[in-house]
Amino acid sequence: MNVCKVGIVTKFNNQNAIEAGKKIAEFYRSKNVKVFSVNNLDVIGVTTVSPEEVSKLDLDLVFSVGGDGTTLRTFRMLPKSTPVFSVNIGGTKRILAEVAGDCNIKAQLEAILNGNCFFDSRIRIQARVANQVFGPALNDILIMRTNLTRTPVFRICFLNETLSFRMDGIIVATPTGSTGHSLSLGGPIIHEQLNCLMILPIAPVQRIPCMIIQPQDISVSSTHGTKIVIDGQEIYDANAESSIIISRYEHDGKFMRLHKRGIRQIAQLGF
Amino acid sequence: MNVCKVGIVTKFNNQNAIEAGKKIAEFYRSKNVKVFSVNNLDVIGVTTVSPEEVSKLDLDLVFSVGGDGTTLRTFRMLPKSTPVFSVNIGGTKRILAEVAGDCNIKAQLEAILNGNCFFDSRIRIQARVANQVFGPALNDILIMRTNLTRTPVFRICFLNETLSFRMDGIIVATPTGSTGHSLSLGGPIIHEQLNCLMILPIAPVQRIPCMIIQPQDISVSSTHGTKIVIDGQEIYDANAESSIIISRYEHDGKFMRLHKRGIRQIAQLGF
Amino acid sequence: MNVCKVGIVTKFNNQNAIEAGKKIAEFYRSKNVKVFSVNNLDVIGVTTVSPEEVSKLDLDLVFSVGGDGTTLRTFRMLPKSTPVFSVNIGGTKRILAEVAGDCNIKAQLEAILNGNCFFDSRIRIQARVANQVFGPALNDILIMRTNLTRTPVFRICFLNETLSFRMDGIIVATPTGSTGHSLSLGGPIIHEQLNCLMILPIAPVQRIPCMIIQPQDISVSSTHGTKIVIDGQEIYDANAESSIIISRYEHDGKFMRLHKRGIRQIAQLGF
Amino acid sequence: MNVCKVGIVTKFNNQNAIEAGKKIAEFYRSKNVKVFSVNNLDVIGVTTVSPEEVSKLDLDLVFSVGGDGTTLRTFRMLPKSTPVFSVNIGGTKRILAEVAGDCNIKAQLEAILNGNCFFDSRIRIQARVANQVFGPALNDILIMRTNLTRTPVFRICFLNETLSFRMDGIIVATPTGSTGHSLSLGGPIIHEQLNCLMILPIAPVQRIPCMIIQPQDISVSSTHGTKIVIDGQEIYDANAESSIIISRYEHDGKFMRLHKRGIRQIAQLGF
Repeated sequence: MNVCKVGIVTKFNNQNAIEAGKKIAEFYRSKNVKVFSVNNLDVIGVTTVSPEEVSKLDLDLVFSVGGDGTTLRTFRMLPKSTPVFSVNIGGTKRILAEVAGDCNIKAQLEAILNGNCFFDSRIRIQARVANQVFGPALNDILIMRTNLTRTPVFRICFLNETLSFRMDGIIVATPTGSTGHSLSLGGPIIHEQLNCLMILPIAPVQRIPCMIIQPQDISVSSTHGTKIVIDGQEIYDANAESSIIISRYEHDGKFMRLHKRGIRQIAQLGF
Repeated sequence: MNVCKVGIVTKFNNQNAIEAGKKIAEFYRSKNVKVFSVNNLDVIGVTTVSPEEVSKLDLDLVFSVGGDGTTLRTFRMLPKSTPVFSVNIGGTKRILAEVAGDCNIKAQLEAILNGNCFFDSRIRIQARVANQVFGPALNDILIMRTNLTRTPVFRICFLNETLSFRMDGIIVATPTGSTGHSLSLGGPIIHEQLNCLMILPIAPVQRIPCMIIQPQDISVSSTHGTKIVIDGQEIYDANAESSIIISRYEHDGKFMRLHKRGIRQIAQLGF
Repeated sequence: MNVCKVGIVTKFNNQNAIEAGKKIAEFYRSKNVKVFSVNNLDVIGVTTVSPEEVSKLDLDLVFSVGGDGTTLRTFRMLPKSTPVFSVNIGGTKRILAEVAGDCNIKAQLEAILNGNCFFDSRIRIQARVANQVFGPALNDILIMRTNLTRTPVFRICFLNETLSFRMDGIIVATPTGSTGHSLSLGGPIIHEQLNCLMILPIAPVQRIPCMIIQPQDISVSSTHGTKIVIDGQEIYDANAESSIIISRYEHDGKFMRLHKRGIRQIAQLGF
Repeated sequence: MNVCKVGIVTKFNNQNAIEAGKKIAEFYRSKNVKVFSVNNLDVIGVTTVSPEEVSKLDLDLVFSVGGDGTTLRTFRMLPKSTPVFSVNIGGTKRILAEVAGDCNIKAQLEAILNGNCFFDSRIRIQARVANQVFGPALNDILIMRTNLTRTPVFRICFLNETLSFRMDGIIVATPTGSTGHSLSLGGPIIHEQLNCLMILPIAPVQRIPCMIIQPQDISVSSTHGTKIVIDGQEIYDANAESSIIISRYEHDGKFMRLHKRGIRQIAQLGF
């Protein structure tokens, strides 16, 4: 893999992340690689860019320096399957990260340079309402009632069948997202390489279980207005009865990894 | 029991409830009992009053004619332990109701008149934030995060101890409320005569179980702003870090019942 | 598909199943197809065989006539991917069945004869302890503590990692089995076409979630003796510390179906 | 409280427990208090007795030295409300213990001698089948299917109503037991002072919730034979259709405590 253009995304307002970002930037600058950073790193030869510009730069590799939130944000900047190397700084769960920021970053960067690394692809999903598209999400898309005094009926269509449940909301999660919000809501952990989606009802009146299906278009509508939340980070509104289509995003998220791990997420959760 | 003043609360916009309310009004008018109604019943001699006035009328008996929502609303109009007789019209679960509206209401009214009835008391709870008091709630008080992109840490204090959990929200339910929203969220069913409260975490990151404790002051605060929802019907705001005290309300809710039933709620849920 | 040899497995001690079996036998005999039955059907030209013989007959199609239990039993008689057509008689859940026994069976048989049918393949699993092999199971393999006064520690190895949980037992289920015992234990429903296995802890002290992984060898051992239960129907013993290997069985179970259904199991469960 | 006769129950095969038991025995012998021990402590003046004899000695105070299992066993030796002081040695959860064995036991014993202690009463339950009585149990009574290839229908009667659920088993737990096996099975935590019982279905086909009721006779019968397990330690058999009556035991279990704690069990569980 030939790396000519590198991007760096650092956690908001976190000096340690900036410091780690600087080291990465200096390493690549010393190899004459072009470096673009979303935060100002104050390193000579590094171009500061907006998140919107990142998506257009056709980068070869992007470093996410922060917690899992930063990694999720980084992936949403990347419409294609640009590789992301995730360095944990200040994250608590660090389920998504490859290395901790206080490791010897330089050794990791050398390993990448020498090709001692591999790709770890993850399916992503998006939501479509009328002609708007939200996402892609690496973890999950939450559809939640807006009005706490109404329990809507959600209609969920997939595979030519329609299910109707009265409940507070619904979460559709990827295997990557199965250790996130859906786990707190009682869902299973799904191995990150499986090719499936989880549909998890939230507070269903009829005590409906979680369902796991192949990636496909899932249409959700509700008798009342809802909020659509992408990866727990971006919020959009949907009207009552409007059709929200959740579908697999065409370009997977691609992690760059150094070490194979059997059950990365489970090990990281400490079970 | 001497009944001199009767109140009637009918379901919003429901003609069947109005019709049943009329029958009740006519029955009591024919006995020269004073009758007050929250909806206009168009019966001679019946005074239409506002919900606020109901609380001041010192009624002897109030009829709730509608679904469980109407019963909950009726109880919130009654600051004292005024007896409520609940007639189900148009409700689906009708867990709280004594009789169905299409029963022979007149026979039921005669039974009440003849004293063939008994009281069924239920603990109620209220929420206090600064100098505002919300409630009383017969079923539950929900405290829910406002911002769907933040998972707050909730601190819960009772019995001189403090627990801290990162989660979406918390519900405190009475035994009466245990067949409502908390059941959908995975909580147990509690016999309606037990003297206890349920504290149920919503989507806790650490998979915390439900806790059941004696009625007492429970202080809840959150690192982010929350909504306080009373019986799933009234919504109030609480700021981040403000202390929300949930406590037993001094006057129980009092149902008037005709028939003893062993496990009223469970039977009604159809298990 | 050329059908020359047909097998029939009918529910134990069920006259309705025998009657339906007779009709099927007579239909195929009238077409000069060889028919073998596990129960004596009293039809001229039908050979009664033992379950062990069924596995060696190289049948083209087998009818399972009974409930889901009969279907599970039928599949265990078939070491290869012999097609099974499942007719429901006397079953309650009938999740696995294609048609009800009181339907017009003859019309169904004509449809099969005319090729208006398709195959629906399901992964199966087996358990291996030392040099013994148990199964194959279409639904699930349960490993349960034998001694109710001891809570064993189970060690579960897959993907080169080992997890240790103190608990009562463990169930490994296929997607087909996800609507069975594992659903009662709190597991998710998995679409029957997905290529994965569910590992569900039973009464884990540490409140471990369900895990969903690719089909692969899963090694389970326990600090105390256990029972191994195949499809809820056959029981074997395993000693403390002995290694139980659960793996995908090399030949899938193959249903013959007439009608495509989107989410067969969910529809059947009545959610 | 005047202590004239002290009993000591130490954990099986645990030298540390024996050592701690010795210290307790020597302390009380130096005060001329009579001391009886279930294990031979090799202390002059201490009488070794059988568990059966303990129940008849009319002791003033009994020390349980070991884990939670030892404490449960100690309480079953005591048909009356004899106070138990629980010293944790070698236990992992130590939810029931007052002090750790490596604390300054002598200081604790002085505190007891000086009356700086109080009682903490807990309801207990027993099971009755025909004319046999099992228990009392401090934690829970489990009724579990014997045959792993049959899912029995359990009929549960209380308050003049009968519920029927198809499932693997049922656990009836006291508030004290709510942090034990029932927690692993998904039950709530109940404050130890509440006067109630938990009925928790195990793997119910219909996904029945936990029920919490007043202490009362609960009759359980099953369509198939079951095992009755008392506090996870003693096992008895019950035939199909035989009526198992679980009821509150007439004498509560009584802990002697030094320190008030708000939510003893929850704190101990580390939530």
